Amino acid sequence: MRNLINITDFTVEELQALMDKALDIIAKPQEYAQSCKGKKLASLFFEPSTRTRLSFEAAMHELGGSVITVSGAAGSSLSKGETLADTARMISCYADICAVRHNLSGSARVMSKASSIPVINAGDGGHYHPTQTLADILTIYREKGGLSGLTIGICGDLLYGRTVHSLIAAMSRYEGNSFVLISPEELKLPEHVVEKMKADGIPFEETADLEEALPKLDMLYMTRIQRERFENPKVYERLAGSYILDARKMHYAKKDCIVLHPLPRVDEISTDFDSDPRAAYFREALNGKFMREALILKLLAEKDLPAQEENIYSDPRFVCVNHKCVCTHERGIKHEVYYDADGTLRCAYCDEIIEA
Amino acid sequence: MRNLINITDFTVEELQALMDKALDIIAKPQEYAQSCKGKKLASLFFEPSTRTRLSFEAAMHELGGSVITVSGAAGSSLSKGETLADTARMISCYADICAVRHNLSGSARVMSKASSIPVINAGDGGHYHPTQTLADILTIYREKGGLSGLTIGICGDLLYGRTVHSLIAAMSRYEGNSFVLISPEELKLPEHVVEKMKADGIPFEETADLEEALPKLDMLYMTRIQRERFENPKVYERLAGSYILDARKMHYAKKDCIVLHPLPRVDEISTDFDSDPRAAYFREALNGKFMREALILKLLAEKDLPAQEENIYSDPRFVCVNHKCVCTHERGIKHEVYYDADGTLRCAYCDEIIEA
Amino acid sequence: MRNLINITDFTVEELQALMDKALDIIAKPQEYAQSCKGKKLASLFFEPSTRTRLSFEAAMHELGGSVITVSGAAGSSLSKGETLADTARMISCYADICAVRHNLSGSARVMSKASSIPVINAGDGGHYHPTQTLADILTIYREKGGLSGLTIGICGDLLYGRTVHSLIAAMSRYEGNSFVLISPEELKLPEHVVEKMKADGIPFEETADLEEALPKLDMLYMTRIQRERFENPKVYERLAGSYILDARKMHYAKKDCIVLHPLPRVDEISTDFDSDPRAAYFREALNGKFMREALILKLLAEKDLPAQEENIYSDPRFVCVNHKCVCTHERGIKHEVYYDADGTLRCAYCDEIIEA
Repeated sequence: MRNLINITDFTVEELQALMDKALDIIAKPQEYAQSCKGKKLASLFFEPSTRTRLSFEAAMHELGGSVITVSGAAGSSLSKGETLADTARMISCYADICAVRHNLSGSARVMSKASSIPVINAGDGGHYHPTQTLADILTIYREKGGLSGLTIGICGDLLYGRTVHSLIAAMSRYEGNSFVLISPEELKLPEHVVEKMKADGIPFEETADLEEALPKLDMLYMTRIQRERFENPKVYERLAGSYILDARKMHYAKKDCIVLHPLPRVDEISTDFDSDPRAAYFREALNGKFMREALILKLLAEKDLPAQEENIYSDPRFVCVNHKCVCTHERGIKHEVYYDADGTLRCAYCDEIIEA
Repeated sequence: MRNLINITDFTVEELQALMDKALDIIAKPQEYAQSCKGKKLASLFFEPSTRTRLSFEAAMHELGGSVITVSGAAGSSLSKGETLADTARMISCYADICAVRHNLSGSARVMSKASSIPVINAGDGGHYHPTQTLADILTIYREKGGLSGLTIGICGDLLYGRTVHSLIAAMSRYEGNSFVLISPEELKLPEHVVEKMKADGIPFEETADLEEALPKLDMLYMTRIQRERFENPKVYERLAGSYILDARKMHYAKKDCIVLHPLPRVDEISTDFDSDPRAAYFREALNGKFMREALILKLLAEKDLPAQEENIYSDPRFVCVNHKCVCTHERGIKHEVYYDADGTLRCAYCDEIIEA
Repeated sequence: MRNLINITDFTVEELQALMDKALDIIAKPQEYAQSCKGKKLASLFFEPSTRTRLSFEAAMHELGGSVITVSGAAGSSLSKGETLADTARMISCYADICAVRHNLSGSARVMSKASSIPVINAGDGGHYHPTQTLADILTIYREKGGLSGLTIGICGDLLYGRTVHSLIAAMSRYEGNSFVLISPEELKLPEHVVEKMKADGIPFEETADLEEALPKLDMLYMTRIQRERFENPKVYERLAGSYILDARKMHYAKKDCIVLHPLPRVDEISTDFDSDPRAAYFREALNGKFMREALILKLLAEKDLPAQEENIYSDPRFVCVNHKCVCTHERGIKHEVYYDADGTLRCAYCDEIIEA
């Protein structure tokens, strides 16, 4: 059985197949309108969401399926002390596939190990959000005609932005892509992501200047800078305006430079840019729904395939202490670790470094 | 594309067509059981509700459609700073029609301007609640055989009661109706509604005495008087009992005087009256469901018709400052105003007077 | 019209018919996939729940029906002062059957008296939870091949555990069953339940020693002991470990002694026992869904049958004062009482003794 916990769970060929399927659904929706008749999606949003949850639910309905929903953790069995593993066993009795959002890193992985139905990670804390990346790549594919040879600008919160890390991981797998990383000094891409790009030979530059970067870009991925990320609010005040995109600044961008944003946006993209044909962020929301349809069909079809292999180890000496990881919260969890490309020991749930 | 923001958005002919459709659905429900197959209603109750939300959802299911739900604003993208306009663009990707309840006046109108799917106002703050009026008029039509020539009593909170204002606006359009307005002095009908009735030549009287008014009425619309409306709780205590309806008082009403209430009722209608054939408030709840079915069918059928024209102006000098209006909350909103029948300048979102 | 408020509402024959139907649904799910087409279940969880609610909703979907949901009481019409009776009348307009969970004892009964659709009690405070008992008995029936001649261990909180009282009531009706009641002194079975077993001639023993009891049992029903039940937390600390089940202790149980738990479990069953074939608690969750399907079909089919007769009296001298009972909260409620087998006067809503 296959799950989707991290965008890298799927090969480049699998991602192409998903995009091809999404395009077929867009072209011929009626052919898919009964594909999931009699099937149920469990929409488990222990951390509430509007967009992602409604996108999944709309996707299942468009495939002719049904939905059972949990929105919020209050009063749920989790709040009564039930483990995520037990929740997964329980939901396996009631649904055929589930999408899970939870505030702890690694929560979707824990559930997938106990579940007998496919699990889709709809956002595990600050860790991964792979279906956003599916929305992103279909959008780039449709708007740019492919996923290769692009100068990709990413702007805003590159340190905490989980969709940023996923997008880089995904787009690094295609030929001829380079990145322009635009952020305040305080929110630069984490060291380990930078190191991986270097190790993979991916060209990139880092800059704090959005306007100066714009003319170089084939696409720009905007993210929100949150006030809470700054200990000193004055630093936020000083910085915030420099990372706002508007029609005036986009005047200096290429005529075919598309702008993406995972949404919701607050003020980092001015509404005066919305009517520009390069504004692709609402088309992105629509693409996300179709990719989720393709994903649901794939995982249901592959129920009997073996799960992906992982080079995972368990050793009582290696314990994750990250307070944001499910490892420090889930009763009875079996700690698992792996060695990354640099030989660094990391937690298999949250990917943080394990101090041996 | 048509929306329903205010009951006056529909002509008298359109309301008649809705009632005729509702009656046909009541008579032949099986003919409509697949009418909305493959369609989705977004049930967006940012301000939670039981009755109105379940009524809309039941209506969509009875038409063979599906529903995606938001109940409460906590954890929603709105709470993350997303505008209502962006929420509308987003929901246009996931549903075919939406019903919205929100605590700000004008919220449904803002969404309808950005949305590419029909928007139904399910209650925007203290402003409008047009589908309640649809339930009211179908009930009067069925119980009284028509909407004309009636002496209509309205009792309770006439000042804040949004359903009261809507009902008066709707029933004023039919021949030969007159109103008996029954309320404490503190909760009398607002000046502008009184002025409009006078200008339209609608006969009415105002009284504080329910028992004295009862024998005159062909129908009585009861509303709840809330304690919180009175600065001095003692005034509430003194008043509350005078506006309670019970079997004893109804002894003095006409034998065919029906009693309506938008529900939920607390104590303003005694349960000892429930079994009286003139108690129509639960039949009203059922009628509301059928009118919502007819409404959904109409708006989906009219997706390609142009929106109603409005004589709306934008002028930077004219800014709404009503703190209960979406204008003072929605980032990037374009203030819009109009001149009412008296030539008074009003906000197009909340209908309050604009100080020029 | 039939409802399910208390497991004893159904005869032994009716329970057998439900189990037979559930087994048929398990064997031939496709035959039932359209049974409830066009029907709606109202899933009214004023007290939120994950498992029970999702079980009901999954059940209705598997029968081809639709669901409308209330989860939590915040913002509901109940929180605006609406009575449960009015809520029942309202929901009768929108659904064909409803399942209700609420924190007050007797809440489901109040609703069933005002409702014109069948009402299923999904948990009324600490009072009853009859559909859990349906899950329990189907599990015992499937795992043990019948419901008779069993030595039934029940462990944990026997004082407050509503599923415990229901299970005893249900299993006492079958031939040759005896009970081993395992609990701390502070959480022993309530006097009135003990007295009833004696009066019915049901063999039982009470012990505080789980390990000593294990070898005698054909089945063991585990329940959670909650810290909040003890005024003195030190007593809880001292006791808690003695009522935890694990693989080591189960070594001393019979090879065919099954273990049930209503879930969610916290730590009272160690995960090291989960892979043992005698661990039946997740199979129990699945059985619960199928019994709910059989129950929905039964109640919809029997809509026109008369309700069960009750020997109920109303007398203004007899008033329930239990603050956890709907009688002390529901405006306009008609107090009802009955005489139990001992001639003791009890409230018909919450079953507590009425001081005359």
